[in-house]
Amino acid sequence: MSSPVVGIVGGGQLARMTAQAAVSLGVEVRVLARDPRDPACSAAARFEIGDPDDLAALLRFSAGCDVVTFDHEQVDPGHVAALEASGHQVRPGSATLRFSDKAHQRGALGALGFPVPAFALATTLAEIEAFASVHGWPVVAKLAVGGYDGRGVFVLDGPASAALLLGEQAARRLVLEPLLDIDREVAVVLARRPTGETAVYPLVETLQADGICVETIAPAAVEPRVAAEAAELASSIAELIGATGILAIELFVTSAGLVVNELAPRPHNSGHWTIDGAATSQFENHLRAVLDWPLGDTGLLAPAVAMANVLGDLDNGDPADRLPSALGVGGASIHLYGKALQRGRKLGHVTSRGADRQTALDQARASASALGGARAATPIGGPVS
Amino acid sequence: MSSPVVGIVGGGQLARMTAQAAVSLGVEVRVLARDPRDPACSAAARFEIGDPDDLAALLRFSAGCDVVTFDHEQVDPGHVAALEASGHQVRPGSATLRFSDKAHQRGALGALGFPVPAFALATTLAEIEAFASVHGWPVVAKLAVGGYDGRGVFVLDGPASAALLLGEQAARRLVLEPLLDIDREVAVVLARRPTGETAVYPLVETLQADGICVETIAPAAVEPRVAAEAAELASSIAELIGATGILAIELFVTSAGLVVNELAPRPHNSGHWTIDGAATSQFENHLRAVLDWPLGDTGLLAPAVAMANVLGDLDNGDPADRLPSALGVGGASIHLYGKALQRGRKLGHVTSRGADRQTALDQARASASALGGARAATPIGGPVS
Repeated sequence: MSSPVVGIVGGGQLARMTAQAAVSLGVEVRVLARDPRDPACSAAARFEIGDPDDLAALLRFSAGCDVVTFDHEQVDPGHVAALEASGHQVRPGSATLRFSDKAHQRGALGALGFPVPAFALATTLAEIEAFASVHGWPVVAKLAVGGYDGRGVFVLDGPASAALLLGEQAARRLVLEPLLDIDREVAVVLARRPTGETAVYPLVETLQADGICVETIAPAAVEPRVAAEAAELASSIAELIGATGILAIELFVTSAGLVVNELAPRPHNSGHWTIDGAATSQFENHLRAVLDWPLGDTGLLAPAVAMANVLGDLDNGDPADRLPSALGVGGASIHLYGKALQRGRKLGHVTSRGADRQTALDQARASASALGGARAATPIGGPVS
Repeated sequence: MSSPVVGIVGGGQLARMTAQAAVSLGVEVRVLARDPRDPACSAAARFEIGDPDDLAALLRFSAGCDVVTFDHEQVDPGHVAALEASGHQVRPGSATLRFSDKAHQRGALGALGFPVPAFALATTLAEIEAFASVHGWPVVAKLAVGGYDGRGVFVLDGPASAALLLGEQAARRLVLEPLLDIDREVAVVLARRPTGETAVYPLVETLQADGICVETIAPAAVEPRVAAEAAELASSIAELIGATGILAIELFVTSAGLVVNELAPRPHNSGHWTIDGAATSQFENHLRAVLDWPLGDTGLLAPAVAMANVLGDLDNGDPADRLPSALGVGGASIHLYGKALQRGRKLGHVTSRGADRQTALDQARASASALGGARAATPIGGPVS
């Protein structure tokens, strides 16, 4: 039997769920993880311990793989370019991964006419104040690199909080933008092959709490015209940046139209619902795409599918201990990541299929709540259905 | 994190798919396999190499597990009783596993008034001829133990073929039965907890070729009354034999009513469709049941769900090599088991959800065919929809 070996750099839950999907295809997944207790190590056919930031470790790991992909986009783009120069198949490649730098992302997309927020780069208080003098306070500041899950995003009320942030973040580059008036936050998750074939999932609404995506609902409650526009916009961006594998594009729905918020060139939290709610999961489609195999159907399996993250809450204890009682709640598919309990950490997620959005969301919330990890969001656009 | 360890004796595809399901629950699966190339070894969190027929190996393996279950029912019941006597949680237990012996199964079920075919036990030609003198030729002879997947089932036309079989099978016990006039073959797959909670999947029709189940369609095309009767019959048997975990009961639909064909106290080929076609897969429900956790919803995700096995065909080559082109056919979810190509060997299966039975079956056949492993059956009851 000749099945390919897919190497995943990083051993988090995205690698874990990709490895789980690989079992069905008979594809071998190998994981480069920092620690044998990382979530993916108990799900992958094989794992190696190494530092994803160490080029020598990356080269050693890649030698045994037919194609190399990523659990996260924090890998040094220079290292990725070095892997490519050594003849390894790396998907997504270094040119795509450069877009993980928010400064590069905003600049390139804006220059090409895609709808991005007004923005500026800053490393000094004078630069932040200059931006505020045009757009007013508050100013939203994001770390250009290294932010994830709402970390690395700051709302600055005035010069004092700006100075405080600059003190904390030393000389790290910041991307500034105005605090937008947003109707909804949505995301397009798509898979794209090196050949260009692209499969787009139904638009999903993402609900945030404290800047973290805590829940999603598919399909998003927007006009079909808006959903179609979002899919087209995302496909154009995927082509522009040469995406391979899953690409998630977070968008703001505003009264002035869609605005591109962020890109993530990998399986994404806003696509977790696809495991139980779409004909093909984002994880299987990521594997197919990086292997340049035909992509699978992205259609919904129910009128509405909701996902709720299970977030660590020290008062509630470990969701794994609450699992038996949570299974009794029913109405949801539970996914735990095998991670140690920490406050606010994503320890798992639950998915519910429903006849309508509110029913699906209520079921998912009940399950996440039974696991002790619910953090319900109030949809900024009002009721979900 | 305190997640339980489930040990599975045997490293075949059933253990593989159970291990894959365990990832979502954060449950650790350990596998006792004969060979590190066995299908489950690349999907389980951990595997140990050992002979499932060796009591010392079983005891050593069980010591590290919270509960022990099985990939197949060919384990020596005496060994299983010894594990229980040593204080290990074994599910299903030895009392249930005794029913894998067809002689015991038929005798016990018949004595309790369940509908079983007329039968007799035989080890000699005189005994076979005596049975034929009452029921006529042909006589169906089945190995009481050790048969699976159509192996160990023989249709005897007369004394000559009976004598030939006895010569081949030495002194092995045979269960004899008449060749029944069957409308359809169906199966009930259910999960049962030690507490008695039982979850029954929709009745599935099984289509055979050369005595092997090659395709299934859910729900079976029978009157609701028949489906209800089958579910009730199966639940009664599950209670009688003290089943824990998945129990599959194969039934014949005849003009005289339902007849019990065979039991399998484990996840079963007739339940593979549940991975993609039911709210909870048989593999997740097997884990929940052996852990005595609440069972999951067994409802269908589409009006009809068909499954087609991918059987080894030396002329067509390895399905793994055909996978990229088969994915292009679409309309099906593909599951390969990572097994070496051998003629007639079950190397994988495909599942299709459809608006009706025939559409689902056509899609599944097209995918299995693209993988080079289709063996289409003609439903004995005529068209499937």
